[in-house]
Amino acid sequence: MTEVKLGIVGLGNVGSGTIRILAETSAQIEQKLGFPLRVAAVCARNLENKEIPAALAGSRRTTDWREVVNSPDVDVVAELIGGVTTAREIVETALGNGKSVVTANKELMALTGPELWDRAIQKGVNLAMEASVAGGIPIHTVLREGISGDRIVALYGILNGTSNYILTEVEKSGAAFDDVLAEAQRLGYAEADPTADVDGFDARSKLAILSALAFGQRIEARNIFTQGIRRITPIDFQYAHTLQHTIRLVCAARLTPEGLILSVRPALIPKSTILANVQGAYNAVWVRGKYGQDTFYYGRGAGPEPTGVAVVSDLMRVAREIRSGSPERVSPFAHDQLAEFRPVSVEVQKRAYYLRFQVKDQPGIIAALAGILAENKISLDAVLQLPSDNKRSLPFVITVEPSTEKTITDAVAAMNRLEFMVEPALALPMETSL
Amino acid sequence: MTEVKLGIVGLGNVGSGTIRILAETSAQIEQKLGFPLRVAAVCARNLENKEIPAALAGSRRTTDWREVVNSPDVDVVAELIGGVTTAREIVETALGNGKSVVTANKELMALTGPELWDRAIQKGVNLAMEASVAGGIPIHTVLREGISGDRIVALYGILNGTSNYILTEVEKSGAAFDDVLAEAQRLGYAEADPTADVDGFDARSKLAILSALAFGQRIEARNIFTQGIRRITPIDFQYAHTLQHTIRLVCAARLTPEGLILSVRPALIPKSTILANVQGAYNAVWVRGKYGQDTFYYGRGAGPEPTGVAVVSDLMRVAREIRSGSPERVSPFAHDQLAEFRPVSVEVQKRAYYLRFQVKDQPGIIAALAGILAENKISLDAVLQLPSDNKRSLPFVITVEPSTEKTITDAVAAMNRLEFMVEPALALPMETSL
Repeated sequence: MTEVKLGIVGLGNVGSGTIRILAETSAQIEQKLGFPLRVAAVCARNLENKEIPAALAGSRRTTDWREVVNSPDVDVVAELIGGVTTAREIVETALGNGKSVVTANKELMALTGPELWDRAIQKGVNLAMEASVAGGIPIHTVLREGISGDRIVALYGILNGTSNYILTEVEKSGAAFDDVLAEAQRLGYAEADPTADVDGFDARSKLAILSALAFGQRIEARNIFTQGIRRITPIDFQYAHTLQHTIRLVCAARLTPEGLILSVRPALIPKSTILANVQGAYNAVWVRGKYGQDTFYYGRGAGPEPTGVAVVSDLMRVAREIRSGSPERVSPFAHDQLAEFRPVSVEVQKRAYYLRFQVKDQPGIIAALAGILAENKISLDAVLQLPSDNKRSLPFVITVEPSTEKTITDAVAAMNRLEFMVEPALALPMETSL
Repeated sequence: MTEVKLGIVGLGNVGSGTIRILAETSAQIEQKLGFPLRVAAVCARNLENKEIPAALAGSRRTTDWREVVNSPDVDVVAELIGGVTTAREIVETALGNGKSVVTANKELMALTGPELWDRAIQKGVNLAMEASVAGGIPIHTVLREGISGDRIVALYGILNGTSNYILTEVEKSGAAFDDVLAEAQRLGYAEADPTADVDGFDARSKLAILSALAFGQRIEARNIFTQGIRRITPIDFQYAHTLQHTIRLVCAARLTPEGLILSVRPALIPKSTILANVQGAYNAVWVRGKYGQDTFYYGRGAGPEPTGVAVVSDLMRVAREIRSGSPERVSPFAHDQLAEFRPVSVEVQKRAYYLRFQVKDQPGIIAALAGILAENKISLDAVLQLPSDNKRSLPFVITVEPSTEKTITDAVAAMNRLEFMVEPALALPMETSL
């Protein structure tokens, strides 16, 4: 059978991993598909310094993406440049030209995925995005096909490798967040501007995509409650461990009687849960189905080759569909029709909470705080105080029984007005149901 | 678009879970596919006592599977009766009649999967078998599509829920294997004849299927080195814990310079590995790829509804292909052409080993054993002896540095001839690379 011709746009980390795998595994690809994939064109802003494997020597090289997406010699375009403006133009032009597209672009897909999918349907082509979330974990394939027969009721993820790396380093070393971040930046594990990672925005885009897939709802990332990890201290890990928990940046999507509740926030999770074993830059997704119950998926979150595997696997699937002349594709969103998402505020959700205070050591602190909890009808669960010499900023922790987020927020606001508070209280939900 | 019509053969555990999910999620299925699935016929040996959901009241009922597989009103047959003789006849007749088949039958697929797949190709229909291994984990979809672009170098699995349940109970309770097995039988977690589970044969069939998928080789289960868990005692867990390990029935497939090495056997695995967290009746698969590195998949190994999700997800995929009129299917074996498996004996593989002895307490034991190790050029790593009062059958453990299985087997045979040995030594590999 004749080959399917690929156009690769972008030779950064993911692009270079992709072409390396395509070059090294061409025999396996042909064995699995029954026909070869050929890289017809590669595009990079700057082609000098780019290593192109010898096996791809015959491919056309260009610095103008238009030459790739408009070429009659390209069947499938892999958009691997990232960002939203040019990437969107590339994807739209390719789809408009009747070419299928494979993308690794989480921001683009979180922002405009459903519209781009509608465009692909109109043109009878495919749009594949396995690489856009949790590079090494084939979670799209799992949600779109592997467990498509289940009814998903909850999805939890550790979706940002950088913040997970920082949290596990703070946990292991006991060093402060800022020091660990600086070291991560020095080692190239964190960006010079770490906002997208440590403030939760990257994870939020990924949760938007996975929730659309899992629940068939059109979800805008900006509607997701998002909190970063900057306030987590080594002390929080000490207290969390005392409570047999650890702390992770948890992306959560839960179908509740009130509707779908989405959040990205640091949370306490039991040490006994498999999610607590996700260390360093790894990613993981935990899915709870009505019928299949709990399944768990774990792997590299990023990296040229793990993400390249996702791109190549998508290219193989799309190529197979092109060769079969099949007009029937599987929506990357698992549903062809996405319902509009009516966001339900996290305020309604009930959770046990961990409240960590820094106070001036003086009599009457517990009484004052317990009084505010009582006024807000919040039941106190435990008061914990590990040894500390710092009498001017003494840490201690109160855990409370399940209460609504709204009640907790109100109580914490009242507590923060007390004169002995050195800094605002830190309130973290405890995901005891994991 | 018009419906796709299903024939369900078998209303045992998996069949009843399947029709319940089909009945309860029909709206979601139609939303995802764009057309409905209709259960046209159900077949069970005995239809009395079978609960058929009200939503499926219009379906034809029969006790003769021929009525289902020969019916012009059935597009896809789900073979859910298990066993090999009749099941094979059902699958072959259905494929012969040009109907696609979904099966949950691991024995049948391990024995005759590649031949049945050849038959499906000839007839231009599909054969799907996600439910045949690790019911709740969509591992077929992952290997066939999700990470199809990777080159798999190793696969480790905990694939038998019953034996994992028994091992974790022995570990937690310290009770003897026989007592835990008897209790598991009383609770219905183990069969009256537990051989298939505790002697590793069930896991072996599953490993044969997964290895064919992962490595593109035609693998006969009987060529897989297989050892059961009957000799594992609470004492082994005590020693394993002392070594920061635990013990699991590990299904392993490794691509080595010598070839593919397959085994099903109890092994020591580090406590820190995520695989060590697989408790009770859960299943897990760990895949190591050349490019994507490590990924890990975890879920229920069995149960009517988790396995039903796998069947329904397969039915949806097959129905989509039927509706699209696509002649191009994805081989359940990931490769359309399976190479013949040339088995490589486990004898060549090098591992650290755990050797546990039961001896009559007398002087000279360590010297005698160390002498045999030295004769076989095996380097001793540690000698461990936890307190014990039983001087007539004293347990103790030697761990040795990586040595070939052949060398270990020879040394153990020599040790077993020593007069102070109360029972043959137990030799378990230590999977330290996990």
